[in-house]
Amino acid sequence: MEKIEHIGIAVKDLDQAIKNYEQLLQSPCYKTETVESEYVKTAFFKVGESKIELLQALNNEGPIHQFIEKRGEGMHHIAYEVEDIKKEMARLKETGSRLLNEEPKKGADDKWVCFIHPKDNNGVLTELVQSISTSNL
Amino acid sequence: MEKIEHIGIAVKDLDQAIKNYEQLLQSPCYKTETVESEYVKTAFFKVGESKIELLQALNNEGPIHQFIEKRGEGMHHIAYEVEDIKKEMARLKETGSRLLNEEPKKGADDKWVCFIHPKDNNGVLTELVQSISTSNL
Repeated sequence: MEKIEHIGIAVKDLDQAIKNYEQLLQSPCYKTETVESEYVKTAFFKVGESKIELLQALNNEGPIHQFIEKRGEGMHHIAYEVEDIKKEMARLKETGSRLLNEEPKKGADDKWVCFIHPKDNNGVLTELVQSISTSNL
Repeated sequence: MEKIEHIGIAVKDLDQAIKNYEQLLQSPCYKTETVESEYVKTAFFKVGESKIELLQALNNEGPIHQFIEKRGEGMHHIAYEVEDIKKEMARLKETGSRLLNEEPKKGADDKWVCFIHPKDNNGVLTELVQSISTSNL
């Protein structure tokens, strides 16, 4: 893994959370984006080479809504940047990881992404990401 | 905040988790350390400019034991590197954050640390860290 690309945090109220994280990080929210396929609104902040991604459910469907219903607000996933997402997916699948999508799918912020089951990484939902603009996919 | 210094992950079995994260990250565990005051054994991995810190409870006491009893294994905290921990603590206290220790305390990996209540950051236990060797404290 090249670096921690971002940490995803599930929040109830994106506007409140943006103000809170701008205050905490002393870094402005540089982008918000809705990902309809995941039922989320997202907001991004830069911290060093990584990002914080806040996620609010769009409605009563989807993984962020379910997560907050079950556990409340908090850390939702860790995303690692990889150079070749297909290669990493194949490597992890071969060593027994359960990929939650068998092909890279489009995530927020111009990325190909793949999620790995939290049970395979000690309870941590793990995401692989590669920039779409630097990929050949 | 300068960067994400590390992400803390609570695990049940440190040896199993070390093998798992060496496999996931393709990065060796470069240090293990016991922090008696926090009732934990820790293991560190480098990922870009950040680290992954695995935490196993030493016994049936302390915050990691409690966390796993309540929620199972998973992401426990985000730690941000700061240039001046006392200054950041004062800034955050003034804007209403509840500091869990009023003075910097010694954490793992040669750091001064301060924890902030998870309710103040949308359910995320937040840690400020500054290297002891670069501080004047």
